[in-house]
Amino acid sequence: MENINRKPTKRISLGKVEIGDNAPVSIQSMLSLPTAHVTACIKQLHELEAAGCEIVRMSVTDLKDAKALAILKRETKMPIVADIHFDYKLALAALEHGVDGLRLNPGNIGSREGVEQVVKASLERQIPIRIGVNSGSLPADLLSQYGLSPQSMVEAALRHVRILEELHFDQIKISVKASQLPLMVESYRLLSSLTDYPLHLGITESGSMLRGTIKSSIALGTLLQEGIGDTIRVSLTAPPLEEVNVAKEILKSLSLRKGLNIISCPTCGRTRINLMELVEKVETALAPYEDIPLTVAVMGCAVNGPGEAREADFGIAGGDGEGLVFARGEIIKKVPESQLVEELLAMIIAEVER
Amino acid sequence: MENINRKPTKRISLGKVEIGDNAPVSIQSMLSLPTAHVTACIKQLHELEAAGCEIVRMSVTDLKDAKALAILKRETKMPIVADIHFDYKLALAALEHGVDGLRLNPGNIGSREGVEQVVKASLERQIPIRIGVNSGSLPADLLSQYGLSPQSMVEAALRHVRILEELHFDQIKISVKASQLPLMVESYRLLSSLTDYPLHLGITESGSMLRGTIKSSIALGTLLQEGIGDTIRVSLTAPPLEEVNVAKEILKSLSLRKGLNIISCPTCGRTRINLMELVEKVETALAPYEDIPLTVAVMGCAVNGPGEAREADFGIAGGDGEGLVFARGEIIKKVPESQLVEELLAMIIAEVER
Repeated sequence: MENINRKPTKRISLGKVEIGDNAPVSIQSMLSLPTAHVTACIKQLHELEAAGCEIVRMSVTDLKDAKALAILKRETKMPIVADIHFDYKLALAALEHGVDGLRLNPGNIGSREGVEQVVKASLERQIPIRIGVNSGSLPADLLSQYGLSPQSMVEAALRHVRILEELHFDQIKISVKASQLPLMVESYRLLSSLTDYPLHLGITESGSMLRGTIKSSIALGTLLQEGIGDTIRVSLTAPPLEEVNVAKEILKSLSLRKGLNIISCPTCGRTRINLMELVEKVETALAPYEDIPLTVAVMGCAVNGPGEAREADFGIAGGDGEGLVFARGEIIKKVPESQLVEELLAMIIAEVER
Repeated sequence: MENINRKPTKRISLGKVEIGDNAPVSIQSMLSLPTAHVTACIKQLHELEAAGCEIVRMSVTDLKDAKALAILKRETKMPIVADIHFDYKLALAALEHGVDGLRLNPGNIGSREGVEQVVKASLERQIPIRIGVNSGSLPADLLSQYGLSPQSMVEAALRHVRILEELHFDQIKISVKASQLPLMVESYRLLSSLTDYPLHLGITESGSMLRGTIKSSIALGTLLQEGIGDTIRVSLTAPPLEEVNVAKEILKSLSLRKGLNIISCPTCGRTRINLMELVEKVETALAPYEDIPLTVAVMGCAVNGPGEAREADFGIAGGDGEGLVFARGEIIKKVPESQLVEELLAMIIAEVER
């Protein structure tokens, strides 16, 4: 199978994370706490970083939040993006306290003079700005001209882009998030056809863990397969950690990121073992090897299992009380069901340490 | 936004469920128990039907399983598909016991004479056959000619199709499932370009609840947006009920099915209420209204919430101890946080009963 042909975009840097121009698609999340609640934020930062988050956003609603950025920055290697609404002074304060990126819409943060100050300070520090348009807050004139449509979404974003370009600022990335999936997908397609700035993908107000995961997987998956998207955020009404887990699985499914790929049968009338329990055990046991590029199969039936999972590097197949351990389509040994997971783990550790 | 332009396919009927030629995309699942365990199967059948499953498949591994079909058929309105491997006699037995569809690969069920008997019996009863090719069990000659590729997947399926067509049988649907997402997507695209038989979409061995949901959402979502796919199964190493829930959400996300759409913000540093808990309460309270075509928003912040969720029919937005109830962008009232869910529910019930 061919790899995804990614659309060339302009390269920008967010701290040490490169975005665009074929840099790996990076994973973002956002703290779910007020930024000024430093102790709780530090805990969440560490959790996100351990889970594989690569860029973290925080809302800056007042000067206390802005000051907290300086403390939080010392606690993480992830670049920090400050989320600013309506007030250019908060952007200036965030820059002063060492933020790595800004998310703001220059048309909405105050006077022209304020915008110029923010752009000047960002240029001096080489800090990129994300323009983030949301289907819920489009300008009235665009809504009346184009309705709620990809045209109004994209034009809203390009208006903000033009403000920055007039001020000779080009360290830009753009998002056009919507909660309706078709609107979101078409908006990004249109935007990608009109600009070479890197794009930040996301569905907004996507919903709870399950609903949000499904919508985000379809929307982000569709665009990423078309080569659109340089950095992603899965928004969920769930702990930010889950956003990172879902994002990683999306990228792995599309071979945009290497890592452990655990495949397993659905249970069916042929299964004679507790397959769900077995898969859970395997997932837990292999969690520390999440980044190892191996495909591991957990199959419900010893007759078809090893053959069906020929593509897998390693696998186990349950039978009736006992099961098979196999590697690349070849059966290695037959063991009691209770030993399947430890045998699998031993093979993987041997491979990793080889 | 335009609707999805579905590819025209041949129409077949599975009991009362129509498949193909713009019939609604139907949802399938499979019993996770041996078919002969009738009591437990009846319980699972009822659960699946209540959840919105429209077609149910069961494995038929021996004559006991085949006989059980007659009993199970009386317990459900869903058409039943018998999953047969290697033995045409089991297909004949399943037909005799009143099955509505068969899933078998005619090249793998025995002698030419046996295949002819199955086709004759299926024709007499007007029972369609699904040809189901799986990336794990492709013929050796195709693997050596084309490798593991869309070409080998599709040619394997078309070989079985030709056997049926030679016997003047055309009540066919086809699946080409793979566990690797890009292989699966490309195989269906190729198949759809070469045949007009309706297609049954699925990722095989997709994995556990979360991993499987993500892979299936991307793969099925991608193809359905392109108009490919007439019936779907989400395979998960999880209870079959979850397969149906995920399938419904995939179809709703793409507007291929009407129903309740609950949107909600991710939590962020601006949220002053327990949004996750609130969303859970709303999901539970609205579960009986799953099929009502309304968009309901649960927003974390009273300042932006009602505006951002202007597209929603109804919504609530949390504040600090109290929250707003809104309908189509207009604020209806302000209530204590503890009353938000009941006020929302009252509005929805009033709308439904109007």
